Amino acid sequence: MVKMILDVDTGIDDALAIAYAVSLPAVELLGVTTTYGMAPVDYSYRNSRKVLEALGAAHIPVYRGSEKPLKRSREYSGKIHGNDGLGETLGPVEAPAASSEHAVDYLICQIRKHQKELTIVATAPLTNLAAAITKAPEIVGMVGKVVIMGGAVMTPGNVTKFAEANIIIDPEAAGLVLESGLPITLVGLDVTRKTLLTQADVAKWKQKGTPASAFFARFTEFYLDAYSKLHPYLKGCALHDPLAVGVAVYPDLVQTVPMNVKVDLEDNALGRTTEDLYRAAEPTTLVCVQVDADRFMKSFFAHVI
Amino acid sequence: MVKMILDVDTGIDDALAIAYAVSLPAVELLGVTTTYGMAPVDYSYRNSRKVLEALGAAHIPVYRGSEKPLKRSREYSGKIHGNDGLGETLGPVEAPAASSEHAVDYLICQIRKHQKELTIVATAPLTNLAAAITKAPEIVGMVGKVVIMGGAVMTPGNVTKFAEANIIIDPEAAGLVLESGLPITLVGLDVTRKTLLTQADVAKWKQKGTPASAFFARFTEFYLDAYSKLHPYLKGCALHDPLAVGVAVYPDLVQTVPMNVKVDLEDNALGRTTEDLYRAAEPTTLVCVQVDADRFMKSFFAHVI
Repeated sequence: MVKMILDVDTGIDDALAIAYAVSLPAVELLGVTTTYGMAPVDYSYRNSRKVLEALGAAHIPVYRGSEKPLKRSREYSGKIHGNDGLGETLGPVEAPAASSEHAVDYLICQIRKHQKELTIVATAPLTNLAAAITKAPEIVGMVGKVVIMGGAVMTPGNVTKFAEANIIIDPEAAGLVLESGLPITLVGLDVTRKTLLTQADVAKWKQKGTPASAFFARFTEFYLDAYSKLHPYLKGCALHDPLAVGVAVYPDLVQTVPMNVKVDLEDNALGRTTEDLYRAAEPTTLVCVQVDADRFMKSFFAHVI
Repeated sequence: MVKMILDVDTGIDDALAIAYAVSLPAVELLGVTTTYGMAPVDYSYRNSRKVLEALGAAHIPVYRGSEKPLKRSREYSGKIHGNDGLGETLGPVEAPAASSEHAVDYLICQIRKHQKELTIVATAPLTNLAAAITKAPEIVGMVGKVVIMGGAVMTPGNVTKFAEANIIIDPEAAGLVLESGLPITLVGLDVTRKTLLTQADVAKWKQKGTPASAFFARFTEFYLDAYSKLHPYLKGCALHDPLAVGVAVYPDLVQTVPMNVKVDLEDNALGRTTEDLYRAAEPTTLVCVQVDADRFMKSFFAHVI
């Protein structure tokens, strides 16, 4: 059993990652921490709660976290995930997030409590994690595993030719996390772009006719549509965030290379994730370079709604 | 037995690659084709002949090839390999190259003759290979294997932060070769930077006291010195080109990822080797992502002078 916390900016593929984590028998999802990213944090908080409700998992707690990058500003575009973050299915946020505790404090507390038994899967800008290790540096050596959907090591980025979204939105936080010594598995575009959900998959969800499947089909169609316009070289939409959950539970889904990773902060390659030639320490990050996409997709569709 | 042609711009690590290929019992070195690169082609031709003579292998034919990149000019710097290409051991070229045949024609002829039995190891700018497949496109499907020392896929370059020398010197040729469908194994900085020769290794060559070991020690010391100034983050000099020979003979020295590779021709990342998202064909290139450096170094030192 994998004790898991999901750190998300829900977000369409975050929603699919939550659904996958909730439905996998091997996962005990302790809680969901949220941050800004594809939409403001109050949206990702609300969206995460709504997704959990749709899945019959409203008992899983959701925590509100960081509102903006460590050193930069953030402007939102609804192009890929919709203005509400979930493909215009939920509209504007009506009530502010009612979080019992700040996401960063929850993360610190849970790492101290569960230590090596805990896996954190982060599928958002890494601001919450960076804040947690800044506030409580000792947790770096405590936590079992941190699986991050982020980066593009061998492949072009999806925001610029160099950078992937979760990294470039808060590159200082990403650098801090990737250089911290945390036991990281980096699930980047190198592998997530090989996991493609298609119109045919969404059609199957529609046919099911349950409220949850209809909800998921609606926002995923928005995502598919955005992908066909923005990433026409792909034959579907990438299951970025669900793959991070998959790798957390089934590490042998991927082939990895141990590497010290750095985040480029220079303007000419901002957010690029590449080997850090100047760090002599033994690598604590495993970079995913190949994935058994068929096996992952089978598991995903066998479990998700 | 591996029938091999080495395509080189000798060059210090090319010289070490020639020595390794000549000394490996599993290699039948048919010939050496030369091109410009670290020095003009008449230098790499002369240097290759002198290295073969020092190794007692003057019977192996050397061919003069391309003089400059397909579309660009080339200026030489003696910083890493010396003005003569071999660490100031041989001085200026006195006689022009006396090649019985052009390197490109020799490559085409040998590929037609030996087909799948032939392995080409290219450790230079890819101008000769590009010219060969332009002149005789059918050889793409004939040749057994092409092992290229070039590129930097997961790691920063050594000329710019994006590009490795053999690629950026003639990026159009590199693009043509990498997009041709040739059965390529790409031995880039990702793995070659893990294979480091040190001052202690050179000291052993010196102790041997043979003319060949003294010659090799002299130019390799120049290379070590250049590395300590230009790449101070490394604890020695990289055996870039010898590793390509090693991988050609022992493919299991490396872990590879099949990938369509493209060469960036835009000014803001000239010479970067990265995944080609727009090429739908099955990959014909294997990118080396990890190396058993210890095993390779043992084999190298067990055989070289």
